[in-house]
Amino acid sequence: MSFIKNLSWRYATKIFDSNKKVESDHVEKILEAVRLAPTSFGLQPFHVTVVENQELKDKLQGFSWNQPQIGTSSQVLVFSYRTDVLARINTYFEMISGGNEEVRKGMEGYETMMKNFAESMSEEKIASWAARQAYIALGFALASCAELEIDSCPMEGFDAAAYKEALALPENITPVVLLPIGYRSESDTVRAKVRFPETDLFSNK
Amino acid sequence: MSFIKNLSWRYATKIFDSNKKVESDHVEKILEAVRLAPTSFGLQPFHVTVVENQELKDKLQGFSWNQPQIGTSSQVLVFSYRTDVLARINTYFEMISGGNEEVRKGMEGYETMMKNFAESMSEEKIASWAARQAYIALGFALASCAELEIDSCPMEGFDAAAYKEALALPENITPVVLLPIGYRSESDTVRAKVRFPETDLFSNK
Repeated sequence: MSFIKNLSWRYATKIFDSNKKVESDHVEKILEAVRLAPTSFGLQPFHVTVVENQELKDKLQGFSWNQPQIGTSSQVLVFSYRTDVLARINTYFEMISGGNEEVRKGMEGYETMMKNFAESMSEEKIASWAARQAYIALGFALASCAELEIDSCPMEGFDAAAYKEALALPENITPVVLLPIGYRSESDTVRAKVRFPETDLFSNK
Repeated sequence: MSFIKNLSWRYATKIFDSNKKVESDHVEKILEAVRLAPTSFGLQPFHVTVVENQELKDKLQGFSWNQPQIGTSSQVLVFSYRTDVLARINTYFEMISGGNEEVRKGMEGYETMMKNFAESMSEEKIASWAARQAYIALGFALASCAELEIDSCPMEGFDAAAYKEALALPENITPVVLLPIGYRSESDTVRAKVRFPETDLFSNK
């Protein structure tokens, strides 16, 4: 299938066939696409928790307006944003300098610029900025699922605080969007895609 | 190429070959991927302005820290978020009811729920929510470019207010991220991809 055909094939699956599991090598491919997603300054201020445990999925469904996508899915990918930007910048420069202090010194100007950027943002702006980066990764995960003919359903309707507690996530990592994945149930209805027309979405200059 | 190989191939292109143009059928494919991107409630609260005019690109470069990606690109895709959510919901229900009042009445509960959702958000929350949806579309555009072996460079560093004025965008449409596209210049340096390790990005439950 071509890329556009893949994207047309996918739809927001409401009920998965809970007997069909997404194999671990497929999950790894989806996560590799997530890892390759570009982000602002390369900081990747996000974390993905892959939930496969049935008991936990059932519990999480209760924090998601009881939507059956969660409990019937094979795995739920919980996308969180990170707010520990300064620590992230430190880790980033440790990583790209290979721990070599002299190499790092040579990038001092760049590091200072990034730190100034982080310090210029309010807590709310940081959360919003980091969440946007997670959404690029979400886009890559969605496209990857379509490529592998794995069904998925992005969801924002859930109690983030309850998820955070149930997943024992630290203070600096907060859930923002879910992607249950699996294979569609025969009882699910594939509804026609509704999209605004091109004249609404695009213009040329 | 496989999807993962496509994504590995791409990099944040700093200088494009300004003599090489992305053909219009390729631009259309990228926009079709953008159009197919799923969004919260299907509201697609974004707009993409495709800038091809060289004089305008040169002007915009001045509002983008003078980064050469803008002026040397074949086209700049300016992703904006929309804040006119209630009007958007109206248009959405007009669209899916085909203008039939009775059909629309049958969906009244769903329409009210969506309007309550929109009205529950502050202006800042709406902006943040709408921008996140634009970023899913950005992810689809990036993946589409990689699929077509078109170079690209997502950019957040620009003066959104100056862009808004230069593009004559209405009050309810605000630029949030840019995607210049084209073909890499021979003088550009392809740098190795830097990514945080899997143990940092992912965990299992």
